[in-house]
Amino acid sequence: MNDFGKIFRFTTFGESHGQAIGVVIDGIPAGLDIDEEFIQSELDRRRPGKNRFSTQRNESDKVEILSGVFQNKTTGSPLAMVIFNKNQNSKDYSNIKDIFRPSHADFTYWHKYGIRDYRGGGRSSARETASRVAVGAVAKLILRELNIIVESGVIEIGGVRAKNEDFEFARNSEIFALDRDIENSWKNLILQAKESHDSLGGVVKVRIKNVPVGLGEPIYYKLDNILASAMMSINAVKGVYIGNTNSHTLKGSINNDQISKDGFISNNSGGILGGISNGEDIEFEVYFKPTPSIFKTQKTINKNGDEVEFLLKGRHDPIVAIRGSVVTEAMSACVIVDMLLLNMTRRMDYLTTIFG
Amino acid sequence: MNDFGKIFRFTTFGESHGQAIGVVIDGIPAGLDIDEEFIQSELDRRRPGKNRFSTQRNESDKVEILSGVFQNKTTGSPLAMVIFNKNQNSKDYSNIKDIFRPSHADFTYWHKYGIRDYRGGGRSSARETASRVAVGAVAKLILRELNIIVESGVIEIGGVRAKNEDFEFARNSEIFALDRDIENSWKNLILQAKESHDSLGGVVKVRIKNVPVGLGEPIYYKLDNILASAMMSINAVKGVYIGNTNSHTLKGSINNDQISKDGFISNNSGGILGGISNGEDIEFEVYFKPTPSIFKTQKTINKNGDEVEFLLKGRHDPIVAIRGSVVTEAMSACVIVDMLLLNMTRRMDYLTTIFG
Amino acid sequence: MNDFGKIFRFTTFGESHGQAIGVVIDGIPAGLDIDEEFIQSELDRRRPGKNRFSTQRNESDKVEILSGVFQNKTTGSPLAMVIFNKNQNSKDYSNIKDIFRPSHADFTYWHKYGIRDYRGGGRSSARETASRVAVGAVAKLILRELNIIVESGVIEIGGVRAKNEDFEFARNSEIFALDRDIENSWKNLILQAKESHDSLGGVVKVRIKNVPVGLGEPIYYKLDNILASAMMSINAVKGVYIGNTNSHTLKGSINNDQISKDGFISNNSGGILGGISNGEDIEFEVYFKPTPSIFKTQKTINKNGDEVEFLLKGRHDPIVAIRGSVVTEAMSACVIVDMLLLNMTRRMDYLTTIFG
Amino acid sequence: MNDFGKIFRFTTFGESHGQAIGVVIDGIPAGLDIDEEFIQSELDRRRPGKNRFSTQRNESDKVEILSGVFQNKTTGSPLAMVIFNKNQNSKDYSNIKDIFRPSHADFTYWHKYGIRDYRGGGRSSARETASRVAVGAVAKLILRELNIIVESGVIEIGGVRAKNEDFEFARNSEIFALDRDIENSWKNLILQAKESHDSLGGVVKVRIKNVPVGLGEPIYYKLDNILASAMMSINAVKGVYIGNTNSHTLKGSINNDQISKDGFISNNSGGILGGISNGEDIEFEVYFKPTPSIFKTQKTINKNGDEVEFLLKGRHDPIVAIRGSVVTEAMSACVIVDMLLLNMTRRMDYLTTIFG
Repeated sequence: MNDFGKIFRFTTFGESHGQAIGVVIDGIPAGLDIDEEFIQSELDRRRPGKNRFSTQRNESDKVEILSGVFQNKTTGSPLAMVIFNKNQNSKDYSNIKDIFRPSHADFTYWHKYGIRDYRGGGRSSARETASRVAVGAVAKLILRELNIIVESGVIEIGGVRAKNEDFEFARNSEIFALDRDIENSWKNLILQAKESHDSLGGVVKVRIKNVPVGLGEPIYYKLDNILASAMMSINAVKGVYIGNTNSHTLKGSINNDQISKDGFISNNSGGILGGISNGEDIEFEVYFKPTPSIFKTQKTINKNGDEVEFLLKGRHDPIVAIRGSVVTEAMSACVIVDMLLLNMTRRMDYLTTIFG
Repeated sequence: MNDFGKIFRFTTFGESHGQAIGVVIDGIPAGLDIDEEFIQSELDRRRPGKNRFSTQRNESDKVEILSGVFQNKTTGSPLAMVIFNKNQNSKDYSNIKDIFRPSHADFTYWHKYGIRDYRGGGRSSARETASRVAVGAVAKLILRELNIIVESGVIEIGGVRAKNEDFEFARNSEIFALDRDIENSWKNLILQAKESHDSLGGVVKVRIKNVPVGLGEPIYYKLDNILASAMMSINAVKGVYIGNTNSHTLKGSINNDQISKDGFISNNSGGILGGISNGEDIEFEVYFKPTPSIFKTQKTINKNGDEVEFLLKGRHDPIVAIRGSVVTEAMSACVIVDMLLLNMTRRMDYLTTIFG
Repeated sequence: MNDFGKIFRFTTFGESHGQAIGVVIDGIPAGLDIDEEFIQSELDRRRPGKNRFSTQRNESDKVEILSGVFQNKTTGSPLAMVIFNKNQNSKDYSNIKDIFRPSHADFTYWHKYGIRDYRGGGRSSARETASRVAVGAVAKLILRELNIIVESGVIEIGGVRAKNEDFEFARNSEIFALDRDIENSWKNLILQAKESHDSLGGVVKVRIKNVPVGLGEPIYYKLDNILASAMMSINAVKGVYIGNTNSHTLKGSINNDQISKDGFISNNSGGILGGISNGEDIEFEVYFKPTPSIFKTQKTINKNGDEVEFLLKGRHDPIVAIRGSVVTEAMSACVIVDMLLLNMTRRMDYLTTIFG
Repeated sequence: MNDFGKIFRFTTFGESHGQAIGVVIDGIPAGLDIDEEFIQSELDRRRPGKNRFSTQRNESDKVEILSGVFQNKTTGSPLAMVIFNKNQNSKDYSNIKDIFRPSHADFTYWHKYGIRDYRGGGRSSARETASRVAVGAVAKLILRELNIIVESGVIEIGGVRAKNEDFEFARNSEIFALDRDIENSWKNLILQAKESHDSLGGVVKVRIKNVPVGLGEPIYYKLDNILASAMMSINAVKGVYIGNTNSHTLKGSINNDQISKDGFISNNSGGILGGISNGEDIEFEVYFKPTPSIFKTQKTINKNGDEVEFLLKGRHDPIVAIRGSVVTEAMSACVIVDMLLLNMTRRMDYLTTIFG
């Protein structure tokens, strides 16, 4: 099920080493100015091959709009975007054709479907997330009209946690680091892992500002459970936590966000109460496991069930949390847009405002 | 949006102090034996008022089946279940009529809808989860036919963590404790919090056994992202983590689950790879914030925006994680059933098996 | 799949001779005044047993609201309604337990599900449509706020067609006849059919007034295709035609609706162009087959495949189109409400109006 | 809402004179052999410009598969197909830029969205149906495995009705005529209409053979209401009728399909009872209005509301029912596949067969 969202709904397609990847967005409001440069700039942020901290696969990730835009504005018809794969190197993968890479999706795709596109992980590759960034960029164009800002940064790498949260700094950091004082230590950790043919896990923090009160659709399409779903759908994400990540250890008297006439006195809830935004910043953390693609010999089996020693080749990120942070923003933006549109339908006075 | 699931889809309704709560399940396979006693026994596990560790609201939670069953078997038509509220005590709530309880949904429901059923939290009350337990019990009846077992227990309370994971013990523990050696300490913590008019947070662990390989629908209906969505939709849940909860701090060489011909050598992934079950136990943790209902004076505002000192009355759980654990099982069971049914449609050979 | 609608979505449940039938509406805008008398009056229009032209099964069809309404207004939470069955007479059906009634759903339900609630047709009974009328009444309460009017009447019975279309007259006619000059002839046709143990088919015309321009969601959720789906889901409906029912025989120069500055010069399109309402009256016809329940001996088979002569007992409408017309209105109202709510999400200027 | 189907769900995109049109199919079972030649051959059947009876716009309609197929088999990942537009001639449309063509979607799109891609009707053009034929061809490949056959033909043109139904003949007729004796008369009618700058309506009959008993999901996703929805979503379709198109005029004793041990004695129901297939041929008729694009002067208004005399230029089908028949088959095939997949999930014994 390759679609996401109820009203602002997109469907992605494409494999890592196929002809193209892309996305069709259904449900964009008509009359949105499409800023293609901005969309491309978002893809450039996620783009591989830019520095020592990501994979060396060099994809330009040039996005083309096929439909849904006329004279630079959305028409209300589906907006299709496509990115043709350029630097696929499928022969890198001939040696994994019959083998299940540990902690990859090879084993499960094979058993689920009875067939597997082994070239670069096929559909299960994080390459799919480029499509998400494209649609997320469109979502951000909508949010821009309402001055809603989605930002993110890396808050922990290899167990070392940031002491500061500087989203401005993160935006321009090569590793999207939230803490400038720790950035260099993190870089060193990454390079060490890389040299030792290993990989690292990490944590991303997302913050969304200026969200109006009222977003989120109880009981099963709450803002928090859909944000969690969105984050956990990202490759390598294993956990999500909304608000103060110590809440489960605290007493109610400490954790409760009391209210003054100037607003909430604290924000342990991360801006969401009862599944609905309360007007405070939405804040949550996203936990990424280490890249499963490492260059050490590992034990695995092949399709026949025989045990084999496996040594990976190819090009891979030593830590997926970094480029993954761009994807957390994209998915967050899509969730907020969907929730905005849904919320428009929830009150009789909104209905009579539009149609009265 | 009060429905959950794609094929095995249910919709819940009802408020804490309204006439009734209930659920309509659409998409139950025909021919399932309905064991009403089992369904009631699951509700009894979640039922309030049983002991010192939960709220004293005394509801029998007697469930009635209105449709969808004939001669004790499902017919393929919607199965509706209803629980009439008995012990509602709405006048408990007259004093919160115009006030927003801190860290409750009062503020957000009011602003979202422009109207609020203040009696016991109305729709946002955890009472809604009784409906989930009812549908979860039906899901478990389906899973029983395939010998799939969903179990849970409390693994952490007030920051004190279990050292053992004994799901058998948890089932019979008054506080669903996974560790018998810590059960008493936890009980004391709870009673102390209660005496000091405060509340506690906690963590629940869920384990699902005998899940076949292949469940989960990439890319946006993966087993993990839908489990996360299901868990985060439960009242007071703020976080979810699949598999080894330290994965984000580890190196790939440690975290990867290598494979021998007897299966996976470790299970850091929690039984899910690429969003699809790999045949190992599904394992994850669910983080509950402390009950926001505490009996200490708190600052808040009323509908007019005036600041008020607020002291809660009524009956509340000192820790929601305990009874919440029953709900995590129910939601997990529903997810697994939905994924089983979806997976049946994913292969041509399954299609020709059924229709050939 | 017992749910209908995208935003204003309802799910019905219950069988003809089970404990109850009912409906849960998810997605009603908050703040709607609920006029219970009106809802009941709509059910009374469809109610059986009122006169010689319908079945003699006497159900009061008293509807109870279980949730979603507080102080007489919708809260945005699901509105559940239930109608307990009173006059079920299941022993009427013991003789059809093992037999497939011709042109009924007995044969197909049995083969699809492997089990069949044979009491009164179980889920396949037109009794389910009482739930539709209940939700349709709620939809009409929403439409009333926008002065949108849904009305219907019988335009043809037994091949005899009306010459006038007087919706006002139809509302008060015992047989919902659109033509007062033909009403008596139709009544005689019905009584003759009844006396000869036979049944009649008929055609219903629906008209919806004051629909704003712009309703309908291309390409697959157009106003016309969803109206068609809604109508064809009603028991005994075999055909639907939007606008001038001769359009397929005409030339374009005749059929095209030219436009003046006062609006469309004709309305052959039935108020829908490109799947979107154009501001003219929405008009369409709905074709009902004759009631399959007749009291003549018929050939059929039993579960073992043996041929049997079958003579029906019980109480049945001699023509379903009459009471069916109430159901066409209900479904139409639900479609229009859903389309209104969806349309609110389709333009950036609507978004900034609500959130700006 | 540009998606169709529940399990076998596709989303189309693209405008008549944009860069490309296409479709993404989500939910194709893995392991299907993809016969690209067959897919292209289906597109060729619908392709414009082939003969005197269709528009002269000459599109090769060459379809390219972008994803979802590996080594000629479906992988279970989304199958994306794209058709680049070649022969768009947008300047044909500069004269309709500010004018609403009568009985076209110009007026409604403009008012709904506040913006309109006027080039060739943009999204509302029947060019979108090429995407449907592409996905329909894939659906037919699935049906082929079960020997289910979807076929269609023109049964009425300009009010002149066929006396024979020869689907074999229709397949090779230039105008997909079901009756070889009338084919020439119909051709003459079309050429006369064309010469007089006018257009014709018509009726298509669809027949689906070898459908297993049990397809269709009561109550709101019945086989008949979804087929009706599918047909009515096709450009220019105004009506649908399942089974004997006189049923509404008949008595029950005539219309009922009695049953012998060899099966149903008649098929007035068109193969569907209670919304579920009964094993007989599925048969229905689809009513197309005349092409609204005619070359006579017509009255209309422009965006400013001024009345104008309008004379169309461009290239158009004199009758859309002909090429439309190919689209009715495509949509029918998609519906049947979706119903097959859904039906797999409806019985416990199917579940235990697959997973037991």
